[in-house]
Amino acid sequence: MTATLIQPSPYPSRNPDGERLIDRVDPVIYPGQAGPLSADQLTQFERDGFIQLPTWLDAESTLDVISAAQHAQAKAAADPDHQVIFEPDNGRVRSIFAVHQQMGTFRALARHPKLAGIARQILGSEVYIHQSRINFKPGFEGRPFDWHSDFETWHMEDGMPRMRAISCVLFLDDNFVHNGPLMLIRGSHQRYISCKGVTPDNHYEKSLRKQEYGVPSHDALRSLCAEGEIVSATGTKGTVVFFDCNTMHGSSGNMTPYPRNNIFMVYNSVENALLAPFCGQKPRPEHIASRDFAGVSTY
Amino acid sequence: MTATLIQPSPYPSRNPDGERLIDRVDPVIYPGQAGPLSADQLTQFERDGFIQLPTWLDAESTLDVISAAQHAQAKAAADPDHQVIFEPDNGRVRSIFAVHQQMGTFRALARHPKLAGIARQILGSEVYIHQSRINFKPGFEGRPFDWHSDFETWHMEDGMPRMRAISCVLFLDDNFVHNGPLMLIRGSHQRYISCKGVTPDNHYEKSLRKQEYGVPSHDALRSLCAEGEIVSATGTKGTVVFFDCNTMHGSSGNMTPYPRNNIFMVYNSVENALLAPFCGQKPRPEHIASRDFAGVSTY
Repeated sequence: MTATLIQPSPYPSRNPDGERLIDRVDPVIYPGQAGPLSADQLTQFERDGFIQLPTWLDAESTLDVISAAQHAQAKAAADPDHQVIFEPDNGRVRSIFAVHQQMGTFRALARHPKLAGIARQILGSEVYIHQSRINFKPGFEGRPFDWHSDFETWHMEDGMPRMRAISCVLFLDDNFVHNGPLMLIRGSHQRYISCKGVTPDNHYEKSLRKQEYGVPSHDALRSLCAEGEIVSATGTKGTVVFFDCNTMHGSSGNMTPYPRNNIFMVYNSVENALLAPFCGQKPRPEHIASRDFAGVSTY
Repeated sequence: MTATLIQPSPYPSRNPDGERLIDRVDPVIYPGQAGPLSADQLTQFERDGFIQLPTWLDAESTLDVISAAQHAQAKAAADPDHQVIFEPDNGRVRSIFAVHQQMGTFRALARHPKLAGIARQILGSEVYIHQSRINFKPGFEGRPFDWHSDFETWHMEDGMPRMRAISCVLFLDDNFVHNGPLMLIRGSHQRYISCKGVTPDNHYEKSLRKQEYGVPSHDALRSLCAEGEIVSATGTKGTVVFFDCNTMHGSSGNMTPYPRNNIFMVYNSVENALLAPFCGQKPRPEHIASRDFAGVSTY
């Protein structure tokens, strides 16, 4: 099934004729909402496209989430459903999606005032969860995630109209420099890489394991790195990182004995609700891109 | 061709019946030779199994070696011989062996007083080059090297009798935390992992691309990491790292745009000349394990 009308967008992508770098036209910080971040922290987020908050949650909340994630992992391995993604080569659980709809602990995390409060403050409105997931990167066997901007995919495949969403990562393990931490390119949120290529039907079924379309070229990545350095987000369990929907990021494999499991929650502004996908194909499933736009305060 | 007599050794390995951890019986620092390292630096090397020396060589020497390495890489890609190892999956040059025999710049590096001097000081005698190589880890495509102790292979496959050799690494690029730097396990040189398994004929032809025999188990690596932390050896080009022949080490892949090329020279004591391989098979070729035991001062 292919939609006939592709809506106009300042962020076209999957061009048959080649890649282009486009300047961001949307704000990074939307005005109008107070919140837990200081003015300096907001300025830092606006400049870098991310902010790291060591021990942001209290120890008890963090331990509850870790325990719930272990439970979810065991359940996913024993009784997998369509929300579980496995590694292509070794069959381990790589990700579990829509976790905030599955367990009360994750639902409470999504509406936690110290997390949702930051999302409202940056996005300038009430927010809802566009996507939530736990990424498991086990010791010795953890696989890399290639460089990508989330927004490129969310725009093209989910119909997210503008850059008005942020990812919140809570570290469920200590993230060291050597166990495959999240890497972010400072300032990359200000450039949109309009990628070369097309979108195959049901692309998400493969792309959640290994993305092959909508990926930036080596030249584009070199260009982003020439403007801003690569930062490895490290810290003890309980550290929180927020990053903009268009910040270029990825992570290396994990050869160490230390697992690196993190939970991601994507907050989108309720004023940025999804349209039809800009690639012209049918939307991805609900557990990957929610179309329930009720704010987190109703969770 | 299989040798009939396997010599007795305090470091047996490739056991059909399983893995064992054995305590090192050899010294780390051999007495008798003065050299460039301070008493504190020697103590540190003895305790950790490695030492990192920022900007140890003058800038001019470093730039000469970088230039020679680029020349060697271009020549290896255009006109490969048996000393060149390629990546199994993308056909790029992964390593060039015996570089100190191929170009005057590398021969001069091998006998450099600030490098050979350290080798003599630690090993307590005149030294020769057991093996030299350049490892190329290109941007975006650099592949990991799994955890290993060099000595296990040198003992079993080359007949190096005792732990009396050290590796010298010169950084030809800036080594960051995120471009696949050398990782070392502190203190691991004091434990010998006597591995499970056998040695196939001509193992080196595959093991230089990806090692499958003589590799430590996850349990053994966990045990080493419980005794000493993982250290990522980072620094600007020109940094030198020395590490003991039995220090457990490896490196992750490189997803960044920044290549990470390093030159390795293995110094062995002339009093530790190679015997027949302890695995009972024929020796590896000369360019991988030299049997010319004349000291570096004759190079």
